[in-house]
Amino acid sequence: MNLRENAIQILNSAIDAIKPDRLIKHKLRFEKGLLKIEDKQFDLDKYDRIYIIGAGKASAVMARELENLLGDRIFYGVISVKYGHGVACRKMRILEAGHPVLDENGIQATSQILQIAEDAGENDLVFCLLSGGGSALLEKPPPGISLMDLQRMFELLLSCGANIEEVNAVRKHLSLVKGGQLARTIYPATCVSLILSDVIGDPLESIASGPTAPDPATFQDAWQIIEKYKLSDAVPESIREYLVKGLQSKIPDTLKTGDEVFRKVNHFILGNNLGALKTAEDVAQELGYNTLVISSRIQGEAREIARVAAAIAQEIAQRDMPVKKPACILMGGETTVTLRGKGKGGRNQELALAALLAMSGEKHQYLIASCGTDGTDGPTDAAGGMIDPGIWTKANNMGMSPLKFLENNDAYTFLSQTGGLIMTGPTGTNVMDIIMMLIK
Amino acid sequence: MNLRENAIQILNSAIDAIKPDRLIKHKLRFEKGLLKIEDKQFDLDKYDRIYIIGAGKASAVMARELENLLGDRIFYGVISVKYGHGVACRKMRILEAGHPVLDENGIQATSQILQIAEDAGENDLVFCLLSGGGSALLEKPPPGISLMDLQRMFELLLSCGANIEEVNAVRKHLSLVKGGQLARTIYPATCVSLILSDVIGDPLESIASGPTAPDPATFQDAWQIIEKYKLSDAVPESIREYLVKGLQSKIPDTLKTGDEVFRKVNHFILGNNLGALKTAEDVAQELGYNTLVISSRIQGEAREIARVAAAIAQEIAQRDMPVKKPACILMGGETTVTLRGKGKGGRNQELALAALLAMSGEKHQYLIASCGTDGTDGPTDAAGGMIDPGIWTKANNMGMSPLKFLENNDAYTFLSQTGGLIMTGPTGTNVMDIIMMLIK
Repeated sequence: MNLRENAIQILNSAIDAIKPDRLIKHKLRFEKGLLKIEDKQFDLDKYDRIYIIGAGKASAVMARELENLLGDRIFYGVISVKYGHGVACRKMRILEAGHPVLDENGIQATSQILQIAEDAGENDLVFCLLSGGGSALLEKPPPGISLMDLQRMFELLLSCGANIEEVNAVRKHLSLVKGGQLARTIYPATCVSLILSDVIGDPLESIASGPTAPDPATFQDAWQIIEKYKLSDAVPESIREYLVKGLQSKIPDTLKTGDEVFRKVNHFILGNNLGALKTAEDVAQELGYNTLVISSRIQGEAREIARVAAAIAQEIAQRDMPVKKPACILMGGETTVTLRGKGKGGRNQELALAALLAMSGEKHQYLIASCGTDGTDGPTDAAGGMIDPGIWTKANNMGMSPLKFLENNDAYTFLSQTGGLIMTGPTGTNVMDIIMMLIK
Repeated sequence: MNLRENAIQILNSAIDAIKPDRLIKHKLRFEKGLLKIEDKQFDLDKYDRIYIIGAGKASAVMARELENLLGDRIFYGVISVKYGHGVACRKMRILEAGHPVLDENGIQATSQILQIAEDAGENDLVFCLLSGGGSALLEKPPPGISLMDLQRMFELLLSCGANIEEVNAVRKHLSLVKGGQLARTIYPATCVSLILSDVIGDPLESIASGPTAPDPATFQDAWQIIEKYKLSDAVPESIREYLVKGLQSKIPDTLKTGDEVFRKVNHFILGNNLGALKTAEDVAQELGYNTLVISSRIQGEAREIARVAAAIAQEIAQRDMPVKKPACILMGGETTVTLRGKGKGGRNQELALAALLAMSGEKHQYLIASCGTDGTDGPTDAAGGMIDPGIWTKANNMGMSPLKFLENNDAYTFLSQTGGLIMTGPTGTNVMDIIMMLIK
């Protein structure tokens, strides 16, 4: 068993399996007018018109594959995708826009998307293709709130210490499309949301800010968050006015669970981190490994998660617990890095480097890899990193101290010099990260 | 299933199973003159004299139980135990001494222990009882090095940033008993070391500083560590002189792997973290839980490990992966806490509190507990903490913010007011911590 070759093969297969075109191809079955998705089916002959709308980095590729499947049954569509991520489609307009910062092109694309949602009638079907990046690529500010005000508000939220749920609660209340409001516009047409999840636990309300999902937060919640972080004096006047109107129930709130709109909404998570982990598990089993998927919800400081990964690998190396060697252990999710130094790296590379530190003195044959499924780890051209005894020896021979590179957050330099980088190039998809331990 | 009652029952059973008297009673079989330990047996009739020596917080209780088993076959013995931890024995002297800081009584006790080791001849058998705390309770400084010089050196090592392996490498080279040197003195008598491990991975060279185990480090290594941390000008003169002698091979080094002394040394790890986890697993299975022991080598920042525990519990709660509900997931090891605030707590309580933070918004029924097997978590009277939805609701109703208490490292206050403390009292044993997730 060559751990490095196996690791690359497993990771590549896992990433391939969650590419947007593959997901559409494999999860949707279309025969004799019947479209089957998971345990549901839609009789496309029943509908007058079929529209496709969508937003997110992967949405254009999803749209093209859906077009390959449904062909001329599609009436029309508009997709908002990040600059450089557009692909040619016959029946749809693919519009490129700003990400991660919303720009005018995003607002223009959203207007066209909302026009379709508006046009669609009771006997129409609207496919809504959502993936990571959709929050910025799909936005319609309420009347009177400028793009600049919205950007300013977003900056305030990001720097005040609010957590992501709190940021989203406010954002959804400064939008006419997020928090189920796209679904409200699509109604009474039937909505089929096809979703590629880049959020831990796949919460529908969070992926792309949940344009077709119920929003747990209210205008009251949004305002309390602004007060909690003492932003009430700093928020742009237009935003304050709008939120006060919301508090006084003068404008409709985001959609809540139980709203009749959702009777006509169908959500399908086509791809997520767990899907990638399960493919990795299948491939590892074919290669002869005993496998265990521990969790697809891993969060935390990368260097600490590395220690857990090392603890598991070492226990298996020494005691064949909880599974026997050769073993492939998988975790997924998204770690974070608290920047301390000035080096180059990303959360996955940092995790790998920190795992090498735990290897010091260990003679067991194991490999630990951490890889972003989008192929881009931090501001680098690597997807992630992996370490094994070969890298440990190489670093030792070169007199390179893993600790020093880790302290400078310089995993890229360390791994590039020792052969520990994982390079995939941009993959066009994103279901967060895969952390893998191979033990032989 | 009552998660809280089950958690307490499982933890109590696990701690009971690794108490020193229970371990001696259950792991040693003595019949018709034959003593069986694991897969080995010792014909006690073969030996002229049987001695018992030992050091560590649990060593006195181990000695008494061994006396219960072997009775008058024991010729004599000396045990060095922490103040307040002595118990009455018939055939042995139980001497109390300083811990964690070595004192004169410890050096005196060690002299008597070494005298026994010296006296023991080729046809004698020496039991050596070792447990956590043995590093301070068993020490003989080389001639010319005072207790004060040794204490000063130890302080320098602890504050210079050296890791525990480096600290130990130096300590063993400033001792005439650590690093296998006790075994050298016992030789040519037969040595049977009975060990309660409080170190991750049970490395024989680390538990109680390995008095009967090979030492991987040399005088060269010890000196390089002193230079690495720029301590060479700060070390007391007596210590410098001694180390220089060692560098010039004028004094014997600590024992190395392959030394003929070890032909007559037998090591048995009677109790360790994994043993506690396995008992916990057995009890949980009896209570109807599906179980998984993930690793007994968990290290890292308590609040980050908490997030991993929560990630695992949530995956099982939602998706029955990697095991089906009801599930009991076990991890062991020892976390650390980076102090930021001024509150009261310990690593286990902090882990529990941080896990509660991850529970926010979750409606699943799970419990996360973290418990020190010694019954003393940080400078508190609690053994650890546990959290469940009941605690979450209670804290919410009382308007207590888990985040604020966590930021102040004040887990004890939070958990004591919400009913989340685990109280066992001092247990007289220590195999580090148990982290447990119960999901129903």
